[in-house]
Amino acid sequence: MLKLHHAPNSRAGRIVWLLEELQLPFELNRMDFSPKALKSEEHRARHPLGRVPVLEDGDLMLYESGAIVEYLIARHSNGDLKPAVNSPLFPQYLQWFHYCEGMVMPPINTIVVQTLLLPPERRNEEILGQAKRLLTKTLEPLNETLSGRDYMLGALSGVDFMLGHACYMSRRLGCMPEEMTHLQAYVSRLETRPAFIKGIKA
Amino acid sequence: MLKLHHAPNSRAGRIVWLLEELQLPFELNRMDFSPKALKSEEHRARHPLGRVPVLEDGDLMLYESGAIVEYLIARHSNGDLKPAVNSPLFPQYLQWFHYCEGMVMPPINTIVVQTLLLPPERRNEEILGQAKRLLTKTLEPLNETLSGRDYMLGALSGVDFMLGHACYMSRRLGCMPEEMTHLQAYVSRLETRPAFIKGIKA
Repeated sequence: MLKLHHAPNSRAGRIVWLLEELQLPFELNRMDFSPKALKSEEHRARHPLGRVPVLEDGDLMLYESGAIVEYLIARHSNGDLKPAVNSPLFPQYLQWFHYCEGMVMPPINTIVVQTLLLPPERRNEEILGQAKRLLTKTLEPLNETLSGRDYMLGALSGVDFMLGHACYMSRRLGCMPEEMTHLQAYVSRLETRPAFIKGIKA
Repeated sequence: MLKLHHAPNSRAGRIVWLLEELQLPFELNRMDFSPKALKSEEHRARHPLGRVPVLEDGDLMLYESGAIVEYLIARHSNGDLKPAVNSPLFPQYLQWFHYCEGMVMPPINTIVVQTLLLPPERRNEEILGQAKRLLTKTLEPLNETLSGRDYMLGALSGVDFMLGHACYMSRRLGCMPEEMTHLQAYVSRLETRPAFIKGIKA
């Protein structure tokens, strides 16, 4: 059976959501989002830096949420969630999949650090402001792409587990402009999916 | 013909290196690594945030270096550089591919900002120190993996175009401990490849 090591409010939510969408049976190891749990000897044997998600599949241990999404789609689904190599959607799939960690998540990480993780006396307003402006810029192409579409490629795909989660985080952090109406509607649409609710909101 | 939009000392080097390894004919648009070139109207029509690399393949325009590596391997190579889905190397390929932008590049980006891009009076020693310590931690699993191996998966693969470039950058920034002997040897090995020299060092 698949086993997922998970902590709340982390990228691990992407994987719970995907496992629920694929209706795969899995065991969930819920850990606290705390150094005590994540940096424990037990968890560092799974991930040397003590991060989540980590997926176990029999003898196999795998980390990096993007890798796990690709792995589950390739090995544990019927292939619906990723366009074939010769599909015109294939390049878009790759671009938006990698755009998540390459462009959208770095400013989100900075905003989380500067608003939630650092004690108030160590926060830096300038760094926070820069990250917010950059995040807005990285969201603009997504808002445009979603004009007239329900999901990033039209139908639900692996891209949404990455970027959808990142957009949901942006909105929760108060960093999604109201005028990005396509993106606002997209996140609201995701939030009604039962698998998203189980995986991320529950 | 393939056309690559490129700027020196950027992730675009990954793609020039790969194009050279695959011996694909391509046209190179060399731009300055400057706001004037990258944020120009002309280039923002290719990438809304004015980044490189951008690949053109006929009518298709694609950005994100990870996406371009995957695209070229899938559409323009004989498949040697990526393990098949049923290969035992497939999960490792995914993990290390995504580990590059997910774990290694964020501290590298911070170090570049704090040592090269910001004027001295705006640099922050604490942020720089944290990034250096984090980078060392993210390199440790790579050094271990490379024990007894020439490349991340044994033979050269797509992973090396991502992580090899990131490790090369780490060393150039003075952020690769001497005692990481496997990683030091790996970067030295990459630096002798003619395609790497043409793509990244030239």
